[in-house]
Amino acid sequence: MYNFSAGPAQLPGEVLSRAKEELLDWHGCGISVMEMPFSSDEYREIADAAYGSLSELIGLPDNYHILFLQGGAYAHFAIVAMNLMGGQAVADYVQTGHWSTRAINEAKRYGRVNVVASAESSGFNNIPVYDDWTLDPKADYCHITTNETANGVQFHRFPDTGAVPLVADATSDFLTRQMDISQFGLLYVSAQKNIGPTGLTVVIIRDDLLDKAMDITPSVFNYGLQAKNNSRINTPPTYSVYIAGLVFSWLLGRGGLTVMEKINAGKAERLYEVIDADDLFHCTVEPADRSMVNICFELKNASLAEDFLREANSRGIINLKGHGVRGGIRASLYNAMPAEGVDALIEFMQDYSAGHSGKAITGAESDS
Amino acid sequence: MYNFSAGPAQLPGEVLSRAKEELLDWHGCGISVMEMPFSSDEYREIADAAYGSLSELIGLPDNYHILFLQGGAYAHFAIVAMNLMGGQAVADYVQTGHWSTRAINEAKRYGRVNVVASAESSGFNNIPVYDDWTLDPKADYCHITTNETANGVQFHRFPDTGAVPLVADATSDFLTRQMDISQFGLLYVSAQKNIGPTGLTVVIIRDDLLDKAMDITPSVFNYGLQAKNNSRINTPPTYSVYIAGLVFSWLLGRGGLTVMEKINAGKAERLYEVIDADDLFHCTVEPADRSMVNICFELKNASLAEDFLREANSRGIINLKGHGVRGGIRASLYNAMPAEGVDALIEFMQDYSAGHSGKAITGAESDS
Repeated sequence: MYNFSAGPAQLPGEVLSRAKEELLDWHGCGISVMEMPFSSDEYREIADAAYGSLSELIGLPDNYHILFLQGGAYAHFAIVAMNLMGGQAVADYVQTGHWSTRAINEAKRYGRVNVVASAESSGFNNIPVYDDWTLDPKADYCHITTNETANGVQFHRFPDTGAVPLVADATSDFLTRQMDISQFGLLYVSAQKNIGPTGLTVVIIRDDLLDKAMDITPSVFNYGLQAKNNSRINTPPTYSVYIAGLVFSWLLGRGGLTVMEKINAGKAERLYEVIDADDLFHCTVEPADRSMVNICFELKNASLAEDFLREANSRGIINLKGHGVRGGIRASLYNAMPAEGVDALIEFMQDYSAGHSGKAITGAESDS
Repeated sequence: MYNFSAGPAQLPGEVLSRAKEELLDWHGCGISVMEMPFSSDEYREIADAAYGSLSELIGLPDNYHILFLQGGAYAHFAIVAMNLMGGQAVADYVQTGHWSTRAINEAKRYGRVNVVASAESSGFNNIPVYDDWTLDPKADYCHITTNETANGVQFHRFPDTGAVPLVADATSDFLTRQMDISQFGLLYVSAQKNIGPTGLTVVIIRDDLLDKAMDITPSVFNYGLQAKNNSRINTPPTYSVYIAGLVFSWLLGRGGLTVMEKINAGKAERLYEVIDADDLFHCTVEPADRSMVNICFELKNASLAEDFLREANSRGIINLKGHGVRGGIRASLYNAMPAEGVDALIEFMQDYSAGHSGKAITGAESDS
């Protein structure tokens, strides 16, 4: 079974097997991780190990904190603004698709939002050219979405925003490639793509941004307060942190992010090649801005899409349906998707294409 | 091993065993619950079943919604206020201990908070007498904490607040006894006591309260928006919802809340009897207001507490340490704690007392 879900997504088999083994009794302590007080030595060991492994993976600079919180990135669209708009209450946002649009709509509740660049007119098929952005030098921060899960566009280099902190929703491509953390003031990430089960949100924040919160910020979502208290002012999502720690160890064991980036680029490039070479398929995203993790494409004859998905399912190739706002097909190639999964998908696509030669008539894009 | 943790707490053995069996492959679908898209038929089946079982357990009236959200009760101290203070921006709060005090402090960010009754002067050893409360008839709501986890006091009957909706943090005693939901406008509950793993917050809300939110409420924490979208406007804590569903089924299988209430009262009464009868132990909570789930007591000679906890641990009786704000000993007797666990604790306490006869000198209460 190859699960191409955009999230919650496939997890590494080794991680799930380990979780199964340890489910009733963690390391001989007699209880499940789910049953541990979060102030216990055992949970602290789990959380500290996860923190340490993640720091190692991403090369965390000394002047940053990692927070293990709840909410999901969609909650943090609002929470980031509450935490950083305590100064000028102005922020610059770059609109690259479905998720950045939601981030903009949430942030507007807390201050003035400048949409400094938008790819809306192109149907969100590209990343706006950086030279055209008009940034506010007094903004509290500048926000980007490193990868748009629903649209399949990705930043392949990050803008230099000078003294204005660059803030990024990195939910769908975090840990799939090398990133220089020092380019960012703040990164936030929902777990359910490349980290672990939903319920955990990882926030990585530069220390000078820890005291900018608005008065209306709930204590448990006040990044400064949580940083001072090791993310333990309330009960953390302990089981998700545990699984995340297993995933971080698994990634270190595979060689870290340099290795993963190469593997992931290889998987994506092979798939895009097939899409571009085959008359039945079509990818509308500009080649330079294509996502390496969420490969969005269509069947030129859109009326075949349902049949394509059904056939794929019957071969154990599941969850290929595109996001509701965009339709079509989406293959999410996160870290846990092995190269063999991509091989199986490509083989299926080529078989399907061979069985439908001459049917690649461009139909109305009616799938929703 | 008997785990008396106040939360995350012991889970039913049957539930954990089932979770272990199904961890890699849920009902033959080929993937783990952690890997399912939340829009999939499989997750909808899990969430709908959990919703149905919980509705049955609590006798959910037709004009209420159940929400499966993230955040934890501490987050919802703020979120409840944001959701309900959109009208007068005034609320009445009853202060009965550590958690209601935190709820008050969070709510103050969003409007005027009247502390209409407080047991602070008694050291939070009782529930304030209802006749003495001065309620504001124009308040948006009146807030209570049905059970104070850190202090061991519990409401054994609920006030009639007339037209003002009664709102309750029921985190620590929800599902441990019968409750007439129609007495409440809103109940909110962190999962990690009697529901499942941390990361899930259950909100039960009367439909007329779904449209009172302040403009600053983040979308994912807007109860009205979530109710309209079956708690799926963002990714729910899917694995926690799955475990919660198993727990709800387990409770139905045991006979529901009438049966659990009787069992839980029996466990608590036996333990309080031992505490009251033995010279070594002491419970300062007024008998009429004692919690049936968090039994807080001290060793009269406080200097013995560390030794008592160490000895208990060596017998597999774990996590008896009291909350930091109160110190002493706390035995949490949630639904998953079997009667045999209480037997084991009582036997240990009596053995310990026999080994320390004559040492019950009241020392300075120095534990923190």
